[in-house]
Amino acid sequence: MSSTTQHGLVVSAHSADFVWRAGGAIALYARRGWNMTVVCLSFGERGESAKLWREPGMTLDRVKAARRDEATRAAGILGASVRFLDCGDYPLRVSDDALFQLADIYRELRPAFVLTHSLKDPYNFDHPLATHVAQEARIIAQAHGHRPDQPVLGAPPVFLFEPHQPEQCEWKPEVLLDISEVWDVKRRAFETMAAQEHLWEYYTRVALQRGVQASRNSDLKITHAEGYQRIFPQVTGAFA
Amino acid sequence: MSSTTQHGLVVSAHSADFVWRAGGAIALYARRGWNMTVVCLSFGERGESAKLWREPGMTLDRVKAARRDEATRAAGILGASVRFLDCGDYPLRVSDDALFQLADIYRELRPAFVLTHSLKDPYNFDHPLATHVAQEARIIAQAHGHRPDQPVLGAPPVFLFEPHQPEQCEWKPEVLLDISEVWDVKRRAFETMAAQEHLWEYYTRVALQRGVQASRNSDLKITHAEGYQRIFPQVTGAFA
Amino acid sequence: MSSTTQHGLVVSAHSADFVWRAGGAIALYARRGWNMTVVCLSFGERGESAKLWREPGMTLDRVKAARRDEATRAAGILGASVRFLDCGDYPLRVSDDALFQLADIYRELRPAFVLTHSLKDPYNFDHPLATHVAQEARIIAQAHGHRPDQPVLGAPPVFLFEPHQPEQCEWKPEVLLDISEVWDVKRRAFETMAAQEHLWEYYTRVALQRGVQASRNSDLKITHAEGYQRIFPQVTGAFA
Amino acid sequence: MSSTTQHGLVVSAHSADFVWRAGGAIALYARRGWNMTVVCLSFGERGESAKLWREPGMTLDRVKAARRDEATRAAGILGASVRFLDCGDYPLRVSDDALFQLADIYRELRPAFVLTHSLKDPYNFDHPLATHVAQEARIIAQAHGHRPDQPVLGAPPVFLFEPHQPEQCEWKPEVLLDISEVWDVKRRAFETMAAQEHLWEYYTRVALQRGVQASRNSDLKITHAEGYQRIFPQVTGAFA
Amino acid sequence: MSSTTQHGLVVSAHSADFVWRAGGAIALYARRGWNMTVVCLSFGERGESAKLWREPGMTLDRVKAARRDEATRAAGILGASVRFLDCGDYPLRVSDDALFQLADIYRELRPAFVLTHSLKDPYNFDHPLATHVAQEARIIAQAHGHRPDQPVLGAPPVFLFEPHQPEQCEWKPEVLLDISEVWDVKRRAFETMAAQEHLWEYYTRVALQRGVQASRNSDLKITHAEGYQRIFPQVTGAFA
Amino acid sequence: MSSTTQHGLVVSAHSADFVWRAGGAIALYARRGWNMTVVCLSFGERGESAKLWREPGMTLDRVKAARRDEATRAAGILGASVRFLDCGDYPLRVSDDALFQLADIYRELRPAFVLTHSLKDPYNFDHPLATHVAQEARIIAQAHGHRPDQPVLGAPPVFLFEPHQPEQCEWKPEVLLDISEVWDVKRRAFETMAAQEHLWEYYTRVALQRGVQASRNSDLKITHAEGYQRIFPQVTGAFA
Repeated sequence: MSSTTQHGLVVSAHSADFVWRAGGAIALYARRGWNMTVVCLSFGERGESAKLWREPGMTLDRVKAARRDEATRAAGILGASVRFLDCGDYPLRVSDDALFQLADIYRELRPAFVLTHSLKDPYNFDHPLATHVAQEARIIAQAHGHRPDQPVLGAPPVFLFEPHQPEQCEWKPEVLLDISEVWDVKRRAFETMAAQEHLWEYYTRVALQRGVQASRNSDLKITHAEGYQRIFPQVTGAFA
Repeated sequence: MSSTTQHGLVVSAHSADFVWRAGGAIALYARRGWNMTVVCLSFGERGESAKLWREPGMTLDRVKAARRDEATRAAGILGASVRFLDCGDYPLRVSDDALFQLADIYRELRPAFVLTHSLKDPYNFDHPLATHVAQEARIIAQAHGHRPDQPVLGAPPVFLFEPHQPEQCEWKPEVLLDISEVWDVKRRAFETMAAQEHLWEYYTRVALQRGVQASRNSDLKITHAEGYQRIFPQVTGAFA
Repeated sequence: MSSTTQHGLVVSAHSADFVWRAGGAIALYARRGWNMTVVCLSFGERGESAKLWREPGMTLDRVKAARRDEATRAAGILGASVRFLDCGDYPLRVSDDALFQLADIYRELRPAFVLTHSLKDPYNFDHPLATHVAQEARIIAQAHGHRPDQPVLGAPPVFLFEPHQPEQCEWKPEVLLDISEVWDVKRRAFETMAAQEHLWEYYTRVALQRGVQASRNSDLKITHAEGYQRIFPQVTGAFA
Repeated sequence: MSSTTQHGLVVSAHSADFVWRAGGAIALYARRGWNMTVVCLSFGERGESAKLWREPGMTLDRVKAARRDEATRAAGILGASVRFLDCGDYPLRVSDDALFQLADIYRELRPAFVLTHSLKDPYNFDHPLATHVAQEARIIAQAHGHRPDQPVLGAPPVFLFEPHQPEQCEWKPEVLLDISEVWDVKRRAFETMAAQEHLWEYYTRVALQRGVQASRNSDLKITHAEGYQRIFPQVTGAFA
Repeated sequence: MSSTTQHGLVVSAHSADFVWRAGGAIALYARRGWNMTVVCLSFGERGESAKLWREPGMTLDRVKAARRDEATRAAGILGASVRFLDCGDYPLRVSDDALFQLADIYRELRPAFVLTHSLKDPYNFDHPLATHVAQEARIIAQAHGHRPDQPVLGAPPVFLFEPHQPEQCEWKPEVLLDISEVWDVKRRAFETMAAQEHLWEYYTRVALQRGVQASRNSDLKITHAEGYQRIFPQVTGAFA
Repeated sequence: MSSTTQHGLVVSAHSADFVWRAGGAIALYARRGWNMTVVCLSFGERGESAKLWREPGMTLDRVKAARRDEATRAAGILGASVRFLDCGDYPLRVSDDALFQLADIYRELRPAFVLTHSLKDPYNFDHPLATHVAQEARIIAQAHGHRPDQPVLGAPPVFLFEPHQPEQCEWKPEVLLDISEVWDVKRRAFETMAAQEHLWEYYTRVALQRGVQASRNSDLKITHAEGYQRIFPQVTGAFA
């Protein structure tokens, strides 16, 4: 990719979260020529692979390999590359080494925006921890004394994608992103997630509901949308 | 103005509020060729004209005339037109007639966005009432059964400008609007407000602080900014 | 109905709100032999009858008549009776006379529970006003000095049904009511709302999403659910 | 009283509220030589006089007279004077005339602080309305154009006393006032409220619980306390 | 106990917390034949044993032994069994080993509900940590990849019992549990807590206040109650 | 200092935070003869020393030495002493050893009040961690079983000073401390912070804005103020 390619970063607790929650944004920006990178902190090998564990003779390594394959294929369909930090799940535990690795990725990519999980989730403690780590690594990458030979990171905005049960997570859709034109891509990426087929229809409905709401909050015709909450204020030269 | 001119609407409780709180946005959009209309629900004649009331022999009518003059001059400097509904202040009382008048203005202008006060203000009950009325008139203008011969209003976003003591009003700057290029215009508009000279430096500092914060939340150099809170989610095709 | 019949009361701002938002609860309790009464404060004649207003020569009275018919039919399908207070909509305005009428209905029915709208709704100010009125009439009916010859009302719990865009209304599903067994009835009641056909699929998806969430928050198989928020704490002899 | 006497103002929705909720503060300041004035917006004649309404042949006028007597006696015990605006209760309705009467009282007394109800109360809508009116009258009294011949009011802080079910009212004790030395006076004032004897023990326990909490949040021995929430920030020259 | 016995789990930071805060619920369910298990993460040996530390020659081990005895006796009176994880207190520190031990207890007991502390407590950081651990262990026990040979845990609801100063902990009583019939048992269990005699009257008053509130929020006569906040929505077939 | 000297404690994440945020309070109390002690958990060597890192050949040790010097000089100007725990920054990591060291300082000084950071800060995770540690060490110092030979700490109130972007940190000025008389001292202390000259004007404006607000919330003339949020309720014998 050329030196002027723009980058977007997605920090995902488990290997499939980015597909359900940010697949539209990823596909949209990939189509625009951006370099989209997904960092999966874990494979979701213990907590989000129920179907695989029902197979006889399953082992942790085989689950991880299968989940890695699925996520890699889904990322490919969306047009993103994916990196796995293999921190473990249920519970996710992020060492300072992994945190600094993520800070290095910030410095390497210099993303124009970051997508990650909600701030709270009583159903899943790995999600808010991923958000915390995504924020902390960003702050470290902004420090002049961290690898002082490298230029520091600027202030990329952070957007929080929709959790499974939004109201229980105190999450609110402050941005409704129109993903109508890439909906078919997101749906195809869904369908690589054989282990979680029960979620296909659920997240299709989420996209349709957010689409209706996006139309209602504008004068546009939008069929599918993704909701995001902001961490930081929008800095802008125009009301939009 | 041509039929394709775009419109912005500002609903201000008292005759000077729009200058301190939204003067930058108004000047910015006026410079871009937009038609900016300010509706002042009152003149601030009782509650925001201390200096005038200290003059001997002052009457309510004379205060109102003086405040009308000042506001008209300030609007002129910013590049906006201004309408006065003369509803009274301290306390502001908005009849359903005035409410429908405002709904008519929505239908007439079809603004692309609306600026008004914060949702709460323990120092000033006229401000949140103005916000309530600005919202309610917008909803009425959206109703198909309201003047059914006219086309209904769409869904213009509403932005809430900064109150005098933001934290006490539970107001949060979700949008930081770069007003650096029109700051001098806003400052000149300030200075027509002879009755409230004590506020000139206060609101200059507000603009500088929000400017520093806007720079910190982006990688831009911004000297002056205005903060706004959103009522509705942002509908967008891009993270910005 | 016999003297031991139990009663439930639904206070609806417009003539169709109760169908989309509480139709499952109504059908469920009607099937159990309860007397369910819906009070519509308005017909939604101005603000929620877009399709009717597109017909040539439409008048307010004809819209009201059509909406009354639809709501009566929908209530019939659900197994409820409906009363109309005809207070007007967009904006809804509730006089003290209407308020006392509602207090009388509380005293007459002595409902075991009350269903009404969310506490806030930036898209629709009639909804939170209906909630306010439903609460205030309940409080009046509890006063010993109000029609002192009648026995006072007890303390029926109040449940707030789901608004159209829940997060924007600061509404949270604290109760997920299993309506699987009456879903077909609710859907049939939907379909009498010819004026709002665009909402059929939207509220079908709402019921499915809340159904999935209800299953996830229990060990039950639930296909369709309705969400409610509580005003008052649950008083109980068992955790349930 | 001498021209240097300091004044405190209590705005009470019903005739007994000030006793249960602010009786300690009133007695404490009365003992210090302050002039304490209670304004009762209503007598609580409809909604808070259950016991009186159970007497045969009771009328609204007789209830009001009885409640006035009780409140006057209680105020006397506490060392306060009381004024009744007779606005009605359940529902309380405050006309602009009554509002201006209260603004006049602010101008007359120039209180150093104001005590009133919580901002919300789902059990009793008269309480938050009283708070709203107490705040709005204060704002009007601050306006230079309101009776421009009089000096304007300064900025007396407003403290919100404890509602019956604090958590449900979103009320939080930000100030714990030590009333140990006047507890016996408050208790005696309680006991004039023959109509509400069931509340005596309840509010004795409230005072004891807040006393324990006051001790826990300091290194003092406090047996009885009253809790208050602030509307405005504390302005001070010392952390206390 | 038979294979159909139902289980309830209480996660308590210190050895006495469960008595003051959930003793009524435990006694109530024990009386109904449930198996109630209390897990004490620590003995409260450093931070909640002031009286013991005033005895000459006291050691940490002796305090722990005394607290274990007291808690065991109190649990016996309530009808519960108790397990101690001995994680230390002030500060409580929970290793992943202890966390997995608790996850094992979830898998072993398969509780129908879980009781634990509030989400925040500025007076005591061990309490919210206990809540965090109780939630995280529950989530781990739900993971198919955790001990994949065992059946996973379902979704038992979690209820948060009342902290010492509820408003400061942002805790709200969403459930009021009628414990009138077992109040005498809870009081007897209290009285084994010789080290904290100063709390006996405090928590007796808490039970009485919540009892009055429970009566007020229903049409029942309730003398004593315990308050609980919910983490998850109630899933139900009936409004109750 | 004599045995009756009173103490104040400031817990600062980085070596300069206490100057910008609490310098007025420190100077005010020092002038009154109090012993003011600042504990800096880190030097801000990595994250808050941009200017130093731009010098050629800079090392971590040289940055730390320079920051230590600056902070010591600033503290001297304010009249405080300063201790450095050298825990590292970006990210700050506080071991239990450091936590107990801070608990020892509480026991040693027995401060009458504590000043520290806000509870949240999305721009800087070291700040809320410092607050957490300041609170946790205080709780440990209150435990009878912690160094049982020493008298326990009482309950000093904790005040949270103003973060850089207050609304984003959910911080609210509940106390406005008049620092007019020591403003020149605070400004001089500022100016030792050569590494952060860009902040001088920013924090001068903060002091002026809070000064205006302090005047508005009282009837006093205040030119400069500092804002603080409370963790605990104020315990008092008078409304102030």
